[in-house]
Amino acid sequence: MSQSMKAILKMDSRPGLVQKKDIPMPQITAPDDVLIKVKATAICGTDLAIYNSSKSLMHRMANAFPVITGHEFCGHVVAFGSGVSHLKEGEYVSAEMHIVCGQCYNCRHGNGHVCLNTVIKGVDGDGCFAEYVKVPASNIVLLDSSIPYEIAAYMDALGNAVHTVNSVEIAARRVAILGCGSIGLMAIAVARHCGAEEILATDTNDKYLEMAKAMGADRIFNVRNSNEHQEFIEAARSDSARQGVDVVLEISGNPSALADALSVVRMGGDISLLGLPNTNIQIDVADDIIFKGINIHGIIGRRMFDTWYRMIAYIKSGLREKLMQLVTHTFSLEDFQQGFDIKNRGEAIKVVFYPNG
Amino acid sequence: MSQSMKAILKMDSRPGLVQKKDIPMPQITAPDDVLIKVKATAICGTDLAIYNSSKSLMHRMANAFPVITGHEFCGHVVAFGSGVSHLKEGEYVSAEMHIVCGQCYNCRHGNGHVCLNTVIKGVDGDGCFAEYVKVPASNIVLLDSSIPYEIAAYMDALGNAVHTVNSVEIAARRVAILGCGSIGLMAIAVARHCGAEEILATDTNDKYLEMAKAMGADRIFNVRNSNEHQEFIEAARSDSARQGVDVVLEISGNPSALADALSVVRMGGDISLLGLPNTNIQIDVADDIIFKGINIHGIIGRRMFDTWYRMIAYIKSGLREKLMQLVTHTFSLEDFQQGFDIKNRGEAIKVVFYPNG
Amino acid sequence: MSQSMKAILKMDSRPGLVQKKDIPMPQITAPDDVLIKVKATAICGTDLAIYNSSKSLMHRMANAFPVITGHEFCGHVVAFGSGVSHLKEGEYVSAEMHIVCGQCYNCRHGNGHVCLNTVIKGVDGDGCFAEYVKVPASNIVLLDSSIPYEIAAYMDALGNAVHTVNSVEIAARRVAILGCGSIGLMAIAVARHCGAEEILATDTNDKYLEMAKAMGADRIFNVRNSNEHQEFIEAARSDSARQGVDVVLEISGNPSALADALSVVRMGGDISLLGLPNTNIQIDVADDIIFKGINIHGIIGRRMFDTWYRMIAYIKSGLREKLMQLVTHTFSLEDFQQGFDIKNRGEAIKVVFYPNG
Amino acid sequence: MSQSMKAILKMDSRPGLVQKKDIPMPQITAPDDVLIKVKATAICGTDLAIYNSSKSLMHRMANAFPVITGHEFCGHVVAFGSGVSHLKEGEYVSAEMHIVCGQCYNCRHGNGHVCLNTVIKGVDGDGCFAEYVKVPASNIVLLDSSIPYEIAAYMDALGNAVHTVNSVEIAARRVAILGCGSIGLMAIAVARHCGAEEILATDTNDKYLEMAKAMGADRIFNVRNSNEHQEFIEAARSDSARQGVDVVLEISGNPSALADALSVVRMGGDISLLGLPNTNIQIDVADDIIFKGINIHGIIGRRMFDTWYRMIAYIKSGLREKLMQLVTHTFSLEDFQQGFDIKNRGEAIKVVFYPNG
Repeated sequence: MSQSMKAILKMDSRPGLVQKKDIPMPQITAPDDVLIKVKATAICGTDLAIYNSSKSLMHRMANAFPVITGHEFCGHVVAFGSGVSHLKEGEYVSAEMHIVCGQCYNCRHGNGHVCLNTVIKGVDGDGCFAEYVKVPASNIVLLDSSIPYEIAAYMDALGNAVHTVNSVEIAARRVAILGCGSIGLMAIAVARHCGAEEILATDTNDKYLEMAKAMGADRIFNVRNSNEHQEFIEAARSDSARQGVDVVLEISGNPSALADALSVVRMGGDISLLGLPNTNIQIDVADDIIFKGINIHGIIGRRMFDTWYRMIAYIKSGLREKLMQLVTHTFSLEDFQQGFDIKNRGEAIKVVFYPNG
Repeated sequence: MSQSMKAILKMDSRPGLVQKKDIPMPQITAPDDVLIKVKATAICGTDLAIYNSSKSLMHRMANAFPVITGHEFCGHVVAFGSGVSHLKEGEYVSAEMHIVCGQCYNCRHGNGHVCLNTVIKGVDGDGCFAEYVKVPASNIVLLDSSIPYEIAAYMDALGNAVHTVNSVEIAARRVAILGCGSIGLMAIAVARHCGAEEILATDTNDKYLEMAKAMGADRIFNVRNSNEHQEFIEAARSDSARQGVDVVLEISGNPSALADALSVVRMGGDISLLGLPNTNIQIDVADDIIFKGINIHGIIGRRMFDTWYRMIAYIKSGLREKLMQLVTHTFSLEDFQQGFDIKNRGEAIKVVFYPNG
Repeated sequence: MSQSMKAILKMDSRPGLVQKKDIPMPQITAPDDVLIKVKATAICGTDLAIYNSSKSLMHRMANAFPVITGHEFCGHVVAFGSGVSHLKEGEYVSAEMHIVCGQCYNCRHGNGHVCLNTVIKGVDGDGCFAEYVKVPASNIVLLDSSIPYEIAAYMDALGNAVHTVNSVEIAARRVAILGCGSIGLMAIAVARHCGAEEILATDTNDKYLEMAKAMGADRIFNVRNSNEHQEFIEAARSDSARQGVDVVLEISGNPSALADALSVVRMGGDISLLGLPNTNIQIDVADDIIFKGINIHGIIGRRMFDTWYRMIAYIKSGLREKLMQLVTHTFSLEDFQQGFDIKNRGEAIKVVFYPNG
Repeated sequence: MSQSMKAILKMDSRPGLVQKKDIPMPQITAPDDVLIKVKATAICGTDLAIYNSSKSLMHRMANAFPVITGHEFCGHVVAFGSGVSHLKEGEYVSAEMHIVCGQCYNCRHGNGHVCLNTVIKGVDGDGCFAEYVKVPASNIVLLDSSIPYEIAAYMDALGNAVHTVNSVEIAARRVAILGCGSIGLMAIAVARHCGAEEILATDTNDKYLEMAKAMGADRIFNVRNSNEHQEFIEAARSDSARQGVDVVLEISGNPSALADALSVVRMGGDISLLGLPNTNIQIDVADDIIFKGINIHGIIGRRMFDTWYRMIAYIKSGLREKLMQLVTHTFSLEDFQQGFDIKNRGEAIKVVFYPNG
């Protein structure tokens, strides 16, 4: 293999990304290093925020520039360090790009997703928008050959959806999913796959809502329209024995969606929050949390590695076709600009790049 | 037994309560009615708010006036309806005063504490500040004769504490308990009894904090003092492997305590909320809930009847002496005014009345 | 309505059942009585055992004879007692036929399925192989009009399947279901509906195994054939990362199936037992339970009423067509003899009777 | 430090152990190796079985001889490999001696205690009956300086007790603990510490039963005496609302104790099994598991590392004094023979050795 490679980098805090063709290939230096030839990689919401130089991310990444971006991918193992005995060259893999310490209280309780010392590849260090990426062996996940590259390219995002859906009991539950961007759409498909009784989906984009139907939503509501918003509230409360939905998955980050969540969840129900509001939220804690006896769950990352095993299981047992529908655009990595443009225009769901042709 | 009795009533929305001596004794009318001669009854925070005519309670009770107040008590069964076969005259009992429908989704899942149709005796209908009280048979709880009347008088409040503590795993957990009023103090004793690793307690009243020590708090902090407040934050975060406490029990209702809760809970930790803020709370949902991956639990009432069995178990297996310490004042029911006065001055923890001398 | 009705009774411990046409209709006597006109009712395994005068059942029922048999049904409310306010005449209902005390520790913890004082209608007292049946109001379950009578007729059995499947985490799990009689077949459909990764099904009857495929089993094994039995063991262990299945649902009652369960479950896995062996089982507790760190769950009845809500949810959200396939024979109640004959010959899955034509 | 050390070895399958003084000190060879100077180490039941050449252990260890025995210890870090960054020389530590693969399904779900590829130091490879022991860094557990060496010496065994007790809800539960050898005694202390309502303890050795009282058992029963055995059964069932205990912890391995477990557990209760029967057990699965709706849990090892954190928490928050009482004998490692003799005679509870004087 050649010793330099092409990659897409964030050079500094100015908007946009830059392609370079002479980036040194990562080298195996530590005993647990694994080098992977990237087959496919996808744009995540965080990548778009990096592209657009969101303030909080630019602050976080200030000391990391220049950095290879991207953290969703699949590929094949090409080399590994002396301490790796459970992998073989050529194996088809993806990887968890949250690198965790393994030593803190949470890591030692099987809760690496809330490690106190997480480093995220593609944000805090070099990621996978490149021909090759290096990852610690313990973060590698073996994939089943039946999983298409285009789905395997975005398992990090799918993992957010699976983690959110499976953060609460979902079978036989009435579920409201707020936000039908790519992760919300995946969440609909996963909730349906896991036996949800009824799925109500909201968004402000009709195209996404159409896709929500295809993913398995029973009813869709464009909540930009105040009538439809009211219909959503009424539909959620229409079950007279519950007077609300059992579960709300808030994946939009929209403050008004969070208000909806508190409004439509039944007494004793669950709200799982994945969407990041960019402002503080006012909450009537007494009436909306305590008197209703509800539970609110903050969702971050993916369970290591329960979420990954779940993803593989769900894809193998029926989700593959739906998930393929979410891949609306594919490009060579060299055409990354087109991918980000179309994503910025809200026309795409998942955009996949092929870094090695 | 005589056909009229004395009782303490809220006549209308004006502050204070009124004693009457000619209230008709409750009569057994339904097959599942149980009549209890009240041995001891206690003032709860809600009773104090009714006495002081809190706006939200006056609004709720508008159609109930005049109403016999009080909802914490113990006593002996004196009569029951034709449908009651599991009780005997003279049995020592207390009762859950949340009357639930038994038919809604939550009731039929063993979650009566979040019944959609709860009616609270002593608020929405006649309560136990009286010589006799009538309760549905299914709400009666048999007590062990080893439980002193003075503790049995306040099991409703103790149940709030037990429900809050046992809403999360507590053994081997570092716990912060915010608010050392009577329920907070009980929560400290219960958390200690259930194997908490370390208990940090906060309040703004030094007398209550002294009692917190007696209940088993490892460290106490008067958070009105900004230095002590800072010490509390640092103590909570001092465990380097966790960088926070595992569990926060928020029992003060103070908005700044809720901010503390979000600040000191470790990543992946739990916050249970029992204290009722009287204003909306601003929350940084992204940083304080989602990125930390925490769980927030609204706590209402008592689990029916898991919480009641737990209370009896805890009292029998070691909590009795601590709980007796919390009964700082006792009066004849006729002297109810003194009880409310002392409670309003913040000088009492639990005030117990004896309605039948 | 007429004052006498036809019904199918067990008169004494001799094999067979008897039809009577002059049985007095049940009368509303208690405030919570509900009288239901039976639309459809189905033969359960217990009914067959009663028909065949199984020794243990004859022992249990000795003091109940003569008794109207049958405990799976649906119908419409025709009358109710003075204490019933949440039902209307004509409503479409089924009922839990385990009558529980509501007062024991288990009932008061939401675990009525393990009530210490359960009485089973159709076994210990009159059941539903009749034109009318009387049930306490708290046991009634409202049905959705979209549920066909033929499925609603056997919700008691479906509830056993749902209780068994949902006794453990099932989404993303590799599941072995041992025994493909009617409840085993339902369990396959439910496990598939709830997101199982892979379902391996065993039986000794090829016709049932064909139906297992239709219900969603990925692989079927006729374990009477020793080669296929070996293939089953190997298939269960073929996942190298787990070396066994995550979950075994034992629904056959066959001692050799229980041995298989212990053999194929992975370390740390779960076995749920519903099938009743008619002999003691020898177990290598050290090697097969303790060193493997597994959990074994005894399953009885249906969760009250979580299981019932789940059934309705699953039927409404996709299980209807599969469940209709299981109704292989329908008869007028007058032709009950044909139904039992065909069931005894192992030719039927679910046999449904229509008591009112 | 000197390059050879003294250690206690099993040379072959003949009974007894042998002391050697010229064993090469373990060397740091892998990046994650940690070398510990052993301060104190204790005899576990497995060590005794190795000493006595139990058949199954001799079979397992056939390829390991000669091997340094012992797997319970504490000590101080003296050296570590290049990959270890979170430890310092001199730190006070113990270690989990089950070395797990980190790659199998169970390890990757936070369930290393049921790793498919566990290797046990002191059984399958060199252990800690020596001046020094080498352990992988990920197995090291930092100890609090407040924990006495004598307790820290036996945390492996204490971990078995904690894992067993905390395998089920224990606060407010009526618990029967069968077997009052050292682990059973620890389990009593832990169950009391975690809020058990009532603890019934059985054994056949009066001295152990006396200690059971000291650990916190409410009632003790010498079940060798048939009257006391009957009293135990009656005491367990005496709670009329439950008709049994909520939880049985079977720590004796005695087949008749397992029969007792099934007999005294209430409907819907839990049995956790740690004691290893040396023969198959006959179980009436239908009556004793399924109709009772109970759960049975096989317990192996310690949760990694939840159990370890719990141990430290419990010792710090009140268990220290009780646990010190269990250390009945201490010896220099050179006098190991005395320790094994006294242990073989049933006169000791925990026997601690000091390998470095």
